[in-house]
Amino acid sequence: MTAETLPGYRGKLRELLTKAKVGVGDVVRVHTGGDSYEGTLLPRVENADEWHLVIKQKTGYNIGIAHADDLRVEKVGEAIKPEFRPPPLPPVKEGLPKVSIISTGGTIASRVDYVTGGVYAAMSSRDLFSIVPELADIAQIETDILYSVFSENINSDHWEGMAKRIAETIKKGADGVVITHGTDTMGYSTAALSLAVQNLPVPVIFVGSQRSSDRPSSDSATNLVAVVNAAAHAPFAEVALGMHEDTSDDSIIFHPGAKVRKCHSSARYAFQTVNASPIARYRSGKFEMIAEHYRPRQKSEPVIMNRFEKKVALLKFHPGFNPLIVDSFIDAGFRGIVFEGTGLGHVSEACYDAIGRAEKAGILMGMTSQCIWGRVNMNVYSMGRELTRRGVEPLGDMLPETALVKMMWSLGNTKTTEEARALLLTNVAGEYNDRTPYARREP
Amino acid sequence: MTAETLPGYRGKLRELLTKAKVGVGDVVRVHTGGDSYEGTLLPRVENADEWHLVIKQKTGYNIGIAHADDLRVEKVGEAIKPEFRPPPLPPVKEGLPKVSIISTGGTIASRVDYVTGGVYAAMSSRDLFSIVPELADIAQIETDILYSVFSENINSDHWEGMAKRIAETIKKGADGVVITHGTDTMGYSTAALSLAVQNLPVPVIFVGSQRSSDRPSSDSATNLVAVVNAAAHAPFAEVALGMHEDTSDDSIIFHPGAKVRKCHSSARYAFQTVNASPIARYRSGKFEMIAEHYRPRQKSEPVIMNRFEKKVALLKFHPGFNPLIVDSFIDAGFRGIVFEGTGLGHVSEACYDAIGRAEKAGILMGMTSQCIWGRVNMNVYSMGRELTRRGVEPLGDMLPETALVKMMWSLGNTKTTEEARALLLTNVAGEYNDRTPYARREP
Repeated sequence: MTAETLPGYRGKLRELLTKAKVGVGDVVRVHTGGDSYEGTLLPRVENADEWHLVIKQKTGYNIGIAHADDLRVEKVGEAIKPEFRPPPLPPVKEGLPKVSIISTGGTIASRVDYVTGGVYAAMSSRDLFSIVPELADIAQIETDILYSVFSENINSDHWEGMAKRIAETIKKGADGVVITHGTDTMGYSTAALSLAVQNLPVPVIFVGSQRSSDRPSSDSATNLVAVVNAAAHAPFAEVALGMHEDTSDDSIIFHPGAKVRKCHSSARYAFQTVNASPIARYRSGKFEMIAEHYRPRQKSEPVIMNRFEKKVALLKFHPGFNPLIVDSFIDAGFRGIVFEGTGLGHVSEACYDAIGRAEKAGILMGMTSQCIWGRVNMNVYSMGRELTRRGVEPLGDMLPETALVKMMWSLGNTKTTEEARALLLTNVAGEYNDRTPYARREP
Repeated sequence: MTAETLPGYRGKLRELLTKAKVGVGDVVRVHTGGDSYEGTLLPRVENADEWHLVIKQKTGYNIGIAHADDLRVEKVGEAIKPEFRPPPLPPVKEGLPKVSIISTGGTIASRVDYVTGGVYAAMSSRDLFSIVPELADIAQIETDILYSVFSENINSDHWEGMAKRIAETIKKGADGVVITHGTDTMGYSTAALSLAVQNLPVPVIFVGSQRSSDRPSSDSATNLVAVVNAAAHAPFAEVALGMHEDTSDDSIIFHPGAKVRKCHSSARYAFQTVNASPIARYRSGKFEMIAEHYRPRQKSEPVIMNRFEKKVALLKFHPGFNPLIVDSFIDAGFRGIVFEGTGLGHVSEACYDAIGRAEKAGILMGMTSQCIWGRVNMNVYSMGRELTRRGVEPLGDMLPETALVKMMWSLGNTKTTEEARALLLTNVAGEYNDRTPYARREP
């Protein structure tokens, strides 16, 4: 038996199953504690415990059975192939637009471990495609596993890699690119890629899922259909994020990459465009533009600026905020700090000295608002002017998260801090919106 | 001439004005650089520069005139009293409910410096009352200046003081209490006071203003009328925050103290109830309850629990988050850390070791979500379980800001970290809501 026959099984349980000559997919009868259970042996995921085997019963339910000294397994039927094996790819339809799906991980590429009830990153883009076969009628799909990373572990190395891969994919002739990504930090990544890949000829659409595809309320399929449609047909050549607009299953909204934020931990409509207008909507199978101004599809070569300075921090101010944090970043040789201040962009007087030291140490500093909506204005109150005098740059209506990414990028792609400051304050990818809409967007 | 005759004037300019025998309120003619200007001499605020005098011209415009060697001032008319002097308090109407307005600072208690265009904290509650004389028809008002602090400088010492003053005021027979507060950190303070003063017999309503009272769009007056009405008549005995509900001038909404957040840097409807229902609404002069469950007015003695541990931090996670922050808090002897993680409550693997060290150091840790809306759930993904295993407590649907305050309070009012942990996880003042509403609230 090779490793592949018993994926995920380790230790004693693996020995026992190997001795019984059973593999994943076989129908087995398991005897333990005087009871017995019949079903198809399922694989375990890599990081599962080694004390349970899992079978799918005829009823459809999966059960985990703990290892015990009296555990005995016998094979009663040969390899009814378990459902998680991806079916073959549907045939490619010539003449349809070419869309590349680049997978980086996340719930949209996850499945459930039935012993613990936890969700594990596991599926490939190929699997995704197999879940939504109708994608084959929308575009000629190429799938490409770039990473398999929980999005809380995404960092600027991944952004650099995504930028490279997006450019390569476009150069190979893709009419649109889809990036699957965990939702947790997807807003940071869309901001990063908005900056790192410029001069786009085609749309680059990030997509995730708030509910894994084994749940009836999963948004995987509807989101994928919409974003592949957008990648194939949308008139804009920008980095966007496509997810459910609201509680209905009918409307997918496309947010601008530098103006989007995850504003709900579990709802399918978690993402919101903040201080700007969404780009477009896909509803009832129809695509409609919302933004008045956008970069149209065009003949152009993508330009890569994908270096990010890692020594940049985002610090959220709060009552009792201890300025020692600022000092510890000075000591650690940090090059930039983005503050998430209160209201129009304030921190307490207790921070002024540390901020003055950071300025002397040559640290680039910027101010955003923890209010999230609205913009900073450091001229209204004298306390704001105390900060600008110490070199803290007001960052307009930029999201704190986007401001962090922008500062990492500005410092990464320039030679001096002063060049970085100028770049930080320049609108590159719609991260600033001079006319912040007064209208309310819902979280 | 006494100091009061020339408030805010210092140095050479003060000498010159003293010599010219003019005081604030006098009509003066100022000669400089060949020009001359006539108007009423206005006071400067305490922290203004010492190089400008300010006069109000007949046109109503205020101008600042810079000190110069040729500057000459002559008095042309006696003390037309400047408009900023508060008129006498209106007579108290016996029989009306007693409402105490405790002032702590903020825009609602601010005025403009016309030289710099900046806004300075300056007015007393007495001034406030004088701006809105109709308050005298609603209640017997007592005003009380506790602090005059920009709200970004509010810290737990102020919360302790507010708790004491609120209890004293109630014991003296107030039928309701209003606290004026800067909006920047008002949400943190309402959470703190929700915990620090328990067993309330009457409502305690925080109020601020997003536009200072010299602006036509000021919300000072409408907010004050509504909250004094609520303090006088509302049926609930809870800590609440009353501010504009939306863009109309007609509706003031009352948010629960532990579930409210400033979600816009400048709009008058900046505050939002998050993961809960607002308590009540005051619209078109009528008061209506919204919450189904609330603590009613009753005969009870307020109980003070007003100690807050200062060595607690709120850390917002982001891609590239450097765990050295956690280590620097361990080194500095911190007792608690609230994380603002991603999504359902995650941070990167890179943080696990530092979090393990913090656990060993006996630091109490909790997890909230930077999504703001929704709740953390650290059982869905294996990464969440890696954190709970290291002692990080999932804090449900508590706001990150409220969680910080709650942890400071839990550590401040218990003897051991384990007692504090138990208190942190107990719903004390509605900071947890088991049934987070799925319905959307707008930012």
